[in-house]
Amino acid sequence: MTSSPASTKSAATPEPPRFADIEAAAERLAGQAVLTPLLEFPVLNERLGARVLLKAETLQRTGSFKFRGAYNTISRLSEAARRAGIVAYSSGNHAQGVAAAAALVGAPATIVMPADAPAIKMQNTRDYGAEVVVYDRYGESREQVAEKLAAERRATLVRPYDDPDIIAGQGTCGLEIARQAEHQGGAVDLLLVCCGGGGLVSGIALAFGELSPATEIFAVEPAGFDDTARSLAAGERLGNDPEARSFCDALLAARPGAVTFEINRQRLAGGLVVSDAEVAQAMAFAFRVLKLVVEPGGAVALAALLSGKARARGKRVGVVLSGGNVDPETFCAAIGR
Amino acid sequence: MTSSPASTKSAATPEPPRFADIEAAAERLAGQAVLTPLLEFPVLNERLGARVLLKAETLQRTGSFKFRGAYNTISRLSEAARRAGIVAYSSGNHAQGVAAAAALVGAPATIVMPADAPAIKMQNTRDYGAEVVVYDRYGESREQVAEKLAAERRATLVRPYDDPDIIAGQGTCGLEIARQAEHQGGAVDLLLVCCGGGGLVSGIALAFGELSPATEIFAVEPAGFDDTARSLAAGERLGNDPEARSFCDALLAARPGAVTFEINRQRLAGGLVVSDAEVAQAMAFAFRVLKLVVEPGGAVALAALLSGKARARGKRVGVVLSGGNVDPETFCAAIGR
Repeated sequence: MTSSPASTKSAATPEPPRFADIEAAAERLAGQAVLTPLLEFPVLNERLGARVLLKAETLQRTGSFKFRGAYNTISRLSEAARRAGIVAYSSGNHAQGVAAAAALVGAPATIVMPADAPAIKMQNTRDYGAEVVVYDRYGESREQVAEKLAAERRATLVRPYDDPDIIAGQGTCGLEIARQAEHQGGAVDLLLVCCGGGGLVSGIALAFGELSPATEIFAVEPAGFDDTARSLAAGERLGNDPEARSFCDALLAARPGAVTFEINRQRLAGGLVVSDAEVAQAMAFAFRVLKLVVEPGGAVALAALLSGKARARGKRVGVVLSGGNVDPETFCAAIGR
Repeated sequence: MTSSPASTKSAATPEPPRFADIEAAAERLAGQAVLTPLLEFPVLNERLGARVLLKAETLQRTGSFKFRGAYNTISRLSEAARRAGIVAYSSGNHAQGVAAAAALVGAPATIVMPADAPAIKMQNTRDYGAEVVVYDRYGESREQVAEKLAAERRATLVRPYDDPDIIAGQGTCGLEIARQAEHQGGAVDLLLVCCGGGGLVSGIALAFGELSPATEIFAVEPAGFDDTARSLAAGERLGNDPEARSFCDALLAARPGAVTFEINRQRLAGGLVVSDAEVAQAMAFAFRVLKLVVEPGGAVALAALLSGKARARGKRVGVVLSGGNVDPETFCAAIGR
């Protein structure tokens, strides 16, 4: 496998998955992933003048949606490939998803993680039995470190987002939201989904294209990492300023994926951008009112809702809380504001 | 209404509610209370060697189960009684439940709260529109303060636990657990429920008596406030040492209720006692692994499970997480351990 760093779709870019691939992923994940609840809070509905449904992927195995794509990919590997092992690079949630999925199928896993990844993510990854190799987020290319390792060990590289099996796995979250919303009173008009490389929102968009095509879906990003919002507006993949910083450690991808952007440019209504301060306020709201632990990257969609950047009034709105892996220090700083 | 401070059941003690009263409460609560999820976490099952189902009443309206009993009671009042208003005494969760329920039916509410109640509980109670009257938890009788107020205002006193309508309301939580467990693979063998005055556990025990009679139900209390455990063993209502202290502010009742104990002595398998340190560890586990915010009193049943005081191995176990109203300072002290 080779990476696709070009800013336009190249001939080597794989085809996006189709709806049938998401359904097949859902079958693979049955009994392994958690069917997370679509939660409703009267106090949130009243505050927004909307009907708000929160998809709590914080309650997913490994504490984020990432287990879905990782298990969908790894469970399809041959016995020989499993024995040879898995390599992945990740700021932490994909790391845990891969480590847990590899452990379930008995494959050794090595994860390349940035030195400044949250301690909880690094510890959990090790606790699932994976070996962790540390790199400098701002000095080295994690792709190159991981590709070199995979080549040396003849292991399979499981990419964090720009891969059809990963996207199909994350799409199972969209299947569930669409079906749960229907069961809980009807399709959502608006759906807010966090976006780093775009694996989750593109997978969800594919599922909604089949099950709930009238829903408007927005990618939500932290300020400074709004590559998808700008790329959607420009019609081509644009990168972020390398000097940009955000405490949303899960969403610091440098630019949209090739496969994910191919899907997102066709299916998303647009991108929304929130500040770190708005994210911290959303984390504090989740603590105080919802009683849910949400990590910074997992709270951007809620921040778009609470800040008024998403126009929710009078609508049925879905919001994905994508992960809850946050260190006590970061969490307590956010809720203490 | 008069209180019943006698340590044995007096002639004035009301009859316990029956199963039909719980079913009627469930009808009243439909569309007002949240049908909270019964959550399952693979990592918890693996750790305990059990199948664990967590009833997340932290996600209930007002952040605890107390809304159930409060709304069941207040929604039955006549128009005239509603206009005359509601008085309640509470360390905080019943306060919020009564304030929210009173607001929904348009009744003014006055809540007598201890001066050392968590700030979040006092603020939320005021935010629901109630007037808060403060008393000294260790110096004054909250019952007397509230009874005097209710008499002066000709308002209805809504007691926190020792009342058939309150018990029937809390029992709807048991209805849901029994039905959800059945739907999610079968009845639980063991059910762990926090216990202050005993309203929740007695209501749940009544529901389980009809729907899941083979389930063993344990009341879980903080050390120093194990009045129900000792009373169950002795066969009569015993009080706690007035010098006892615990950070489980929701569970500091002085002795079992007369009505609740009448139910509990017939239906519970026994009582379990956990230390404040074990409760803090359970809160930290809920933060780190479950991504749920649980207050001290809401975490005692989980603490009984994680500490090994409840024998769970090989069983299907239900655990009630009864509330999540906790100040950031208390929460961060617990998760930082």
